Amino acid sequence: MTTNIQITLSEERKEKPQPEQLEFGRIFTDHMFVMDYSPQKGWHDARIEPFEPITLSPASMVFHYGQTVFEGLKAYRTSDDKVLLFRPEKNMERLNLSNERLCIPEIDGEFVIEALKKLVSIDKEWIPTTEGTSLYIRPFIIPTEYYLGVAPSKFYKLMIILSPVGSYYKEGIHPVKIFVENQYVRAVDGGTGKAKTGGNYASSLKAQEEAAKKGYSQVLWLDGIEKKYVEEVGSMNIFFKINGEVVTPEINGSILEGVTRNSIIQMLKYWNIPVKEKRISMEEVYDAYKEGVLEEAFGTGTAAVISPIGEFYYKEEKMIINKGQTGDVSKKLYDTLTGIQKGTEEDVFGWVTEVK
Amino acid sequence: MTTNIQITLSEERKEKPQPEQLEFGRIFTDHMFVMDYSPQKGWHDARIEPFEPITLSPASMVFHYGQTVFEGLKAYRTSDDKVLLFRPEKNMERLNLSNERLCIPEIDGEFVIEALKKLVSIDKEWIPTTEGTSLYIRPFIIPTEYYLGVAPSKFYKLMIILSPVGSYYKEGIHPVKIFVENQYVRAVDGGTGKAKTGGNYASSLKAQEEAAKKGYSQVLWLDGIEKKYVEEVGSMNIFFKINGEVVTPEINGSILEGVTRNSIIQMLKYWNIPVKEKRISMEEVYDAYKEGVLEEAFGTGTAAVISPIGEFYYKEEKMIINKGQTGDVSKKLYDTLTGIQKGTEEDVFGWVTEVK
Repeated sequence: MTTNIQITLSEERKEKPQPEQLEFGRIFTDHMFVMDYSPQKGWHDARIEPFEPITLSPASMVFHYGQTVFEGLKAYRTSDDKVLLFRPEKNMERLNLSNERLCIPEIDGEFVIEALKKLVSIDKEWIPTTEGTSLYIRPFIIPTEYYLGVAPSKFYKLMIILSPVGSYYKEGIHPVKIFVENQYVRAVDGGTGKAKTGGNYASSLKAQEEAAKKGYSQVLWLDGIEKKYVEEVGSMNIFFKINGEVVTPEINGSILEGVTRNSIIQMLKYWNIPVKEKRISMEEVYDAYKEGVLEEAFGTGTAAVISPIGEFYYKEEKMIINKGQTGDVSKKLYDTLTGIQKGTEEDVFGWVTEVK
Repeated sequence: MTTNIQITLSEERKEKPQPEQLEFGRIFTDHMFVMDYSPQKGWHDARIEPFEPITLSPASMVFHYGQTVFEGLKAYRTSDDKVLLFRPEKNMERLNLSNERLCIPEIDGEFVIEALKKLVSIDKEWIPTTEGTSLYIRPFIIPTEYYLGVAPSKFYKLMIILSPVGSYYKEGIHPVKIFVENQYVRAVDGGTGKAKTGGNYASSLKAQEEAAKKGYSQVLWLDGIEKKYVEEVGSMNIFFKINGEVVTPEINGSILEGVTRNSIIQMLKYWNIPVKEKRISMEEVYDAYKEGVLEEAFGTGTAAVISPIGEFYYKEEKMIINKGQTGDVSKKLYDTLTGIQKGTEEDVFGWVTEVK
């Protein structure tokens, strides 16, 4: 296992974007982290170098068989110029879970966090500080063997790239409209739903495109077997507040186990707000709506943090939630969680790690 | 739409492999075809150039969200030095079907076949001629936009690379051993099973790896809903001969519609051998085995053509088929189909296209 990181600094520094122009994932910083894997050397040749294109044979397996995994986390810069990461060890745990499902060799999570901190500290000046902005960190692994047989690659590349970002949705913290998907399926038990791998996202594009044409910004996925039980929304986990209780689908093998999801559950418990992980059907949600007790709904994920849901389109009916406004619990969760992430709220859970 | 192909020949020619050393998909020829897509220009800049690495930003969508599609077909060289392709129009049809599912812009199939023929004719000397060998043709499309949002890419690259190949399985036409998979799932209706996209292959690796550890060369996939009905085997379609009748799972949205599968069905009908496409459970196959009427089983696909199955491992039992030998129908199909492909059998179906 590598323990030394070779650093080559970029000779030129790119111009940094204006905070108000920031989108999600369009601009990248001056440096990147790279590490290679071979059966002989294991993970080796860890290095930070200028952000630049990579060169691969057209026969590289990454272009053919989708054996990729990735993670997403964020760095924040506080008013007193500290740099904070939010629960990076959870991302490394999940990266190895994804690796295991995709037959990719395990990584040393602690070492990759060290590498990631080093990289962020080198590109620290790229971290925006205005409301809603942060530095998005994208670790990913690609197979690089030159081979067209269907088999796990023998060679890999782990890379980390950094992107200063604004809000994921143009709407920011404003409620989004969600289309309940009844045709396409994201994942099924025994498939790759719990792994963060490219194929899950590729298979979601068609449903998302069709929902967008109807004016909805994301889709709500139902289970692949009965198309009955709620799974996740777009690339986020989902929560409902029904009659005072917050519920979210339980982990079942096809849902991605979100770091934000896990944090939200802990925060709600800490506040003594009832919260339950359970199998929940869309009919139950609809019935709650009809009875007037569907009080809030929101998605959770690293990119958007908390994304309140103002409307579901289900069975040719528009379900308007909380008059299309952000609910109190959604707002409190968003304010507290982003506060902890940016160091303006007390970190009672010990979630924040400083990059020195 | 592009109608002109720019040709740049390689200044050096690589050494060609000995036919007996050929594996599947390890060696590539001197040239490749490339074409780009942008929203402004559509598919453009079609060109044949030396086979060489491509350079992409680490933020290219292909490294993150798996929005890839591919095809596989073969060119054969006859004893009188003609070059033959087998039903390339079917591959182009399916490529567009995959494109549609993956939100990739449609290609002009006729133009891509022209490009492919041009490329094959330039690298004609790479087509091996000995028994079981051929030139494998791999068209594929990758998303190239630099963006981390989950959305269809706005830019793409279509490439065609060529690889002289031996038999897909080391065993050649000898029967293979298949593990009936009861834990992992390949695809489900509403997912991407009918598309030739990387994610389907990535999700299959784990099951294949576990089967290999037990001594089985491929897995037989059951449906993702009930894990009861037969879908496909490894990356091939599957056929059973039961009591004189050949049966294969019907197309259902999660099975890949194989070109070889389609050809086999037509050949059997032509020979007046009863053949039926229907939903078939593994229990039915097992019952037929127990009754002694499971006469043959074989997989079909471009890479292996016909792959006889000598054994299934199912419910902790070894089902030995036809004493582990290649069956008569499997053999006849293999000989006739490879004969048509190589021009030694009459092409009664009009499947073969000559590359001039």
